[in-house]
Amino acid sequence: MTAIINELSRTETLSLFALAAACVGILVNNFQADGEPLIASLALSGIAFSATYSMIRWLGPSFMKAGLRGVDMSKHHKREIPECMGGICAVVYLLVIIVFIPFPFYKDIVAATSGGGNRDVVFQIENVQQGRFLHRFPHSKLASYLSAIISLQSIALLGIGDDLFDIRWRHKLFIPAFASIPLLVVYFVDFGVTSIVVPIPLQPYLGELFNLGFLYYVYMCCIAIFSPNSINILAGINGIEVSQSIVIALLLAINDCLYLLTPYPHPATDSHLFSLYFLLPFLGVSFALLWHNWYPAKVFVGDTYCYFAGMVFVVVSILGHFSKTLVLLLIPQIFNFIYSAPQLFGLVPCPRHRLPKFNVRTGLLEPSVTPWTPERQPKPLVKTVMLLLHRLRLLRVATDAEGRFVETSNFTILNLWLVWRGPLKEERLAVEITAMQMAVGLFGLFIRHRLALLVFKEDNWGI
Amino acid sequence: MTAIINELSRTETLSLFALAAACVGILVNNFQADGEPLIASLALSGIAFSATYSMIRWLGPSFMKAGLRGVDMSKHHKREIPECMGGICAVVYLLVIIVFIPFPFYKDIVAATSGGGNRDVVFQIENVQQGRFLHRFPHSKLASYLSAIISLQSIALLGIGDDLFDIRWRHKLFIPAFASIPLLVVYFVDFGVTSIVVPIPLQPYLGELFNLGFLYYVYMCCIAIFSPNSINILAGINGIEVSQSIVIALLLAINDCLYLLTPYPHPATDSHLFSLYFLLPFLGVSFALLWHNWYPAKVFVGDTYCYFAGMVFVVVSILGHFSKTLVLLLIPQIFNFIYSAPQLFGLVPCPRHRLPKFNVRTGLLEPSVTPWTPERQPKPLVKTVMLLLHRLRLLRVATDAEGRFVETSNFTILNLWLVWRGPLKEERLAVEITAMQMAVGLFGLFIRHRLALLVFKEDNWGI
Repeated sequence: MTAIINELSRTETLSLFALAAACVGILVNNFQADGEPLIASLALSGIAFSATYSMIRWLGPSFMKAGLRGVDMSKHHKREIPECMGGICAVVYLLVIIVFIPFPFYKDIVAATSGGGNRDVVFQIENVQQGRFLHRFPHSKLASYLSAIISLQSIALLGIGDDLFDIRWRHKLFIPAFASIPLLVVYFVDFGVTSIVVPIPLQPYLGELFNLGFLYYVYMCCIAIFSPNSINILAGINGIEVSQSIVIALLLAINDCLYLLTPYPHPATDSHLFSLYFLLPFLGVSFALLWHNWYPAKVFVGDTYCYFAGMVFVVVSILGHFSKTLVLLLIPQIFNFIYSAPQLFGLVPCPRHRLPKFNVRTGLLEPSVTPWTPERQPKPLVKTVMLLLHRLRLLRVATDAEGRFVETSNFTILNLWLVWRGPLKEERLAVEITAMQMAVGLFGLFIRHRLALLVFKEDNWGI
Repeated sequence: MTAIINELSRTETLSLFALAAACVGILVNNFQADGEPLIASLALSGIAFSATYSMIRWLGPSFMKAGLRGVDMSKHHKREIPECMGGICAVVYLLVIIVFIPFPFYKDIVAATSGGGNRDVVFQIENVQQGRFLHRFPHSKLASYLSAIISLQSIALLGIGDDLFDIRWRHKLFIPAFASIPLLVVYFVDFGVTSIVVPIPLQPYLGELFNLGFLYYVYMCCIAIFSPNSINILAGINGIEVSQSIVIALLLAINDCLYLLTPYPHPATDSHLFSLYFLLPFLGVSFALLWHNWYPAKVFVGDTYCYFAGMVFVVVSILGHFSKTLVLLLIPQIFNFIYSAPQLFGLVPCPRHRLPKFNVRTGLLEPSVTPWTPERQPKPLVKTVMLLLHRLRLLRVATDAEGRFVETSNFTILNLWLVWRGPLKEERLAVEITAMQMAVGLFGLFIRHRLALLVFKEDNWGI
């Protein structure tokens, strides 16, 4: 049963064409006039949406033919649909982000060039530091921008490798570490600032700035490993990978906008524009993917998308120097990871798939479980902790008459949510988890901007 | 029959390990001391060789399992072997070239930084222009270097897409055009020189420098489209894709060395060092691939490798400003393309595969042919030209008693070589074509360096 409609309907064709045409118009206009890069970025994001939307449809059959297909387990009618469609997002995104390069950089360089390749770089850098060109990138940021692209391309390449070759879980973990090398190397070569601002209560002991040195690179690498993997782990129901990524991207974009709307030119404006230029096209391709991946899914996203999304967040937050904010927005993912730890690290047996169980009779999702036999019971300490979690409503444990474990729900946030909220429709579960991510993220941002001033002298440290 | 030895033998393991260990030693030493980037590049190339060699063996079965496999048609025992192993080369190469970034750039920046991120850029640029740091990159070259990496990653991504999805010939042609966008965009943003030096005889009419403007980008794009495709077309026997690429890379490296060994600091030294840094690791991964792809092939290279190799040449020659030299080294490929044109553009029917025909009885390769039926004969003009080519020994035409075409050899340089040199063993044909490429290339370089002074004032134009 592979009866998926791959042709675009006439309405779709017309709408996508109109959107793309309007965006191209804005873009050309923007390039000829002395336009705002932000508008160009918006226009390119519209083009990215149209392109991704159409290509997901057109290339679906080719993906199936190449063996990139999977079966949706949580449906009555199990049929094969294309897998790894996130690869299309990645390629379209990269192309768009490359085409965008001239917009933020070109005018600056024209202004700072006296012609014939003899660049008066001093002139430019001085102006930037005085805030004159605050809404454009300084030339030195070109290298950062390019290194971000290289990191994203690396993760796309490695993600596709993962989708093709089914790499082992232990090895997968380090894929983002490889992809973050270009970012860290260029950071090292081009920037090299490894100091962090010390919170006021600690300043008497550590000073105002504390140089982490080598540890700063370890910290960045950890963020780079965590973010993509945490998005990859929170998966298993239609649309959840994309919707959580969209929520995080939106929250990061809102955070960026807070810096653009300040009455005075904020020293971090550049970093946050940089971040927006990367986030807007990401939102463009992600919405096109969500359209097809939302319940009932017509395509799967593949590991490529999860890694790629996570890396986009890493790239903007590291190069924009707001990685702590990213950590705030990943709270549900962090919770999911810590909660999963007993199974990931083998304290509790971990089945191959831990996605919620589809109850064929009711059509609802229930928590999936790990079965226990009377012979194979958890160790006493583990058992005690699991019973405690059960009492705290953080796990569902079923025991027999003699108190032996029969089955325990799997340690993922999706299963936990189902333990709390009873059997749910797949779509409903996706909506609720997405709403929870949004609420937690908004609260995180509120904390960050309201309470940061209690521990830091300034709201954000510029460059 | 898939009895391919995937384990490394003990001798192989020891040799590769020794090589890699020695190279790592050199590298660490080089990084701690104020070492030459060129030595670091050589050491990294050794590591690249070892890594590619081992990974080709280790990942062979995974490639086969993922459906990336093909049958070698020109053998008695037809067996399936892994396809697309060029993908491994590309990934190893990219990783190595990314890890290399700090070597040419870091010291420069340290020298030019007064600390705390406050870069005294003037100091550095002045010095570079006075030739003091001639053997190191100026900071502004970092962007070029990164854009080259982006172009190479793009071609790897698109090449893998091509290998997976069997893209149509017409669409394939433009894959390198997409991949060259980052190169051209950064060229536009960061460099923007579009003037060419006019040969002395034409200077009275055009001036000393002629600004091609927009056409310069068209020219670069054409080179970028031609080089990868021309290498992809000259294929069909074991080892030929890799051996021709190695010959071209070696010749480019020799050409680069000519500029490093000048008694006085040549203004183009930087460009040619840049080129060497990209070519040496390419040679490393290519030799590892050739080892397994040479007759009798244990792996196939896939389109990814051909595109990637062609793009490496494009990147170094465009960013090094010696694209005319590249054209000289691609003469056999250019001949092959022009010679193929009648079939590529449909004047003569073109079968799906035009690789030389394997004669099962003799075990030798013979020219493959396009058959003609008495009803379907070429148009009179085409027929006349083909008969003329036959008389010039540039084609083999077999006619029946009434002068009607029965079969004509296919228009590829490999078939033409077989027309000239009779049936050959596959290995022999590969050796001869490679030797011819080497001889033509050396002659080209000789021409370039001996005769260029007759039409240009200087041997090479610096920046």
